[in-house]
Amino acid sequence: MPTNQQIVLDNRPQGEAVASNFKLVSGPTPALLQGQVLVRHHYLSLDPYMRGRMNDGKSYAAPQPLGEPMIGGTVGEVVESKHPKFAVGDKVVGMGGWQEYSVVNGDDLGALRKVDTTHIPLSAYLGAVGMPGVTAWYGLVKIIEPKAGETMVVSAATGAVGSAFGALAKARGCRVVGIAGGPDKCKYAVDELGFDECIDYKQHPHVGSLAKALKVACPNGIDGYFENVGGMILDAVLLRMNAFGRIAVCGMIAGYNGEPLPLTNPALILVSRLKVQGFIVSEHMEVWPEALKELGTLVATGKLRPRESVAPGIAAAPEAFLGLLKGKNFGKQLVKLI
Amino acid sequence: MPTNQQIVLDNRPQGEAVASNFKLVSGPTPALLQGQVLVRHHYLSLDPYMRGRMNDGKSYAAPQPLGEPMIGGTVGEVVESKHPKFAVGDKVVGMGGWQEYSVVNGDDLGALRKVDTTHIPLSAYLGAVGMPGVTAWYGLVKIIEPKAGETMVVSAATGAVGSAFGALAKARGCRVVGIAGGPDKCKYAVDELGFDECIDYKQHPHVGSLAKALKVACPNGIDGYFENVGGMILDAVLLRMNAFGRIAVCGMIAGYNGEPLPLTNPALILVSRLKVQGFIVSEHMEVWPEALKELGTLVATGKLRPRESVAPGIAAAPEAFLGLLKGKNFGKQLVKLI
Repeated sequence: MPTNQQIVLDNRPQGEAVASNFKLVSGPTPALLQGQVLVRHHYLSLDPYMRGRMNDGKSYAAPQPLGEPMIGGTVGEVVESKHPKFAVGDKVVGMGGWQEYSVVNGDDLGALRKVDTTHIPLSAYLGAVGMPGVTAWYGLVKIIEPKAGETMVVSAATGAVGSAFGALAKARGCRVVGIAGGPDKCKYAVDELGFDECIDYKQHPHVGSLAKALKVACPNGIDGYFENVGGMILDAVLLRMNAFGRIAVCGMIAGYNGEPLPLTNPALILVSRLKVQGFIVSEHMEVWPEALKELGTLVATGKLRPRESVAPGIAAAPEAFLGLLKGKNFGKQLVKLI
Repeated sequence: MPTNQQIVLDNRPQGEAVASNFKLVSGPTPALLQGQVLVRHHYLSLDPYMRGRMNDGKSYAAPQPLGEPMIGGTVGEVVESKHPKFAVGDKVVGMGGWQEYSVVNGDDLGALRKVDTTHIPLSAYLGAVGMPGVTAWYGLVKIIEPKAGETMVVSAATGAVGSAFGALAKARGCRVVGIAGGPDKCKYAVDELGFDECIDYKQHPHVGSLAKALKVACPNGIDGYFENVGGMILDAVLLRMNAFGRIAVCGMIAGYNGEPLPLTNPALILVSRLKVQGFIVSEHMEVWPEALKELGTLVATGKLRPRESVAPGIAAAPEAFLGLLKGKNFGKQLVKLI
């Protein structure tokens, strides 16, 4: 039986998450029962939502239990199977967690999905053609409901969700403006991801300055905003929203550490007759087939070429994750396990 | 020609609105041109939205011009007509403004509507069977979309909008909890308006205290909230919203004087996957016939018996309006002009 290295949650963060919240443990993979499959993970996905799970407070999901491998999406290969639907060598995507191997009950609905890597690289199923891509798709298609010619804005534009959002919105004939941190990310958003413009929020320490930059980049105002961040960026965007604008709230990453993050002027929701709607994509599994089909086509045809940040080996996961929370990653953050 | 007394906006408020912002003027009513109608107003409606019009800043509507009669809804009687569709004696509802008479072009779409006072008192067309009633209807039916058994909360519960909201929500099988200021209003909400419970926000100076009271009054959480107020009340309600709750934002009365009124924890929109939507009812004229039909039936059958505060004579309008902004009115605020 191969040895399985895991990162478990050892203790909960007091304020900011730190490396000592995690612990590396290892042990043998268990023998399979009938109906089970052993998956060797090739890539682990790191995503902001994991920070929320580390807390014990009220959230939309149960907290991550202490002493167990951190939750996380994985892609890999079946290395042993006692389930008729899965064969050794099958490429699969699942929620294997922060570890090198996972044992999956093949009958659990949605636990393991076989994927085709002919035209789409395996790692893309954790990003553009996976949960982040569907997240962008749901926010854009189901909440924002864009019309051709409208202006869409997305924060964290070069991340896995933001880059997919940009490609999906361009495909619908929208003007797409990104917000990202630093000139490299902004250049990448325009040159490689196809954004019309990208604003470097680090150049705008105050809400008034950022709002002015948005006015220049969005001469017709903002019709749809995909919120990955919250805080000052949301305040600035609200000032530029057109009447009947729609805001899909997917992340409030700046607030995960518990610091207060008020919305300065909620009356703008009334003044501009906005719809502001929060969602988490795992509650809308019914859209996944349609969304994955469109996203897969965009990737296979080169219209969506998301960037990846790859950390080497499971032991590197905590540091990479903490960097992600601080915006140090550039593109979809993965951990390569093989 | 009869003399027409008017209240005009003399100067814009610096912070809080005050009586000296208004001026009483008078002059003869003009001679009618072909197609025009002279209406003698019986009642003028006073509503919180008028405070927004007094400012010069960005809002959903053009500011009230200086030196002209304040905007306002009126009901009255045709006293002279040069339009074939209107006869002397017709009871009509329109936007006649803060004055005793108005001259209306009978062909202007929606400017003047004949109403039937057989079962519905004329003044009700400014409240339950008028703009405030339709406002409640739109927020409840089109934004909140309640299901039987769900819990609905409304602030300013004994006002024209709140009382209509309560009756409409009860008619849909919901539990309805009001928020109002003072024991008299709360007793009235329960005894006369049919609310299941009503919370006196004046007993709860802090958000935690109000949130606790909401927890007791809404043991199954809150599914729909109709926002007339903003500020601390919204903060408290957000803490009690159920997953997939809906908030219709109709008013942010506490912020009209320009003081900052932040939303403390917007991340709850994501955590609880809420929809928060602002609207103004005059942009949704297509729903008025359906809404007015239901509201008229509720009033005619005694299921909605909204209270009125009636100020005597046009000169009393400014003081009554300033009282309304401070919550001094009890029920729909009207000015009786005849």
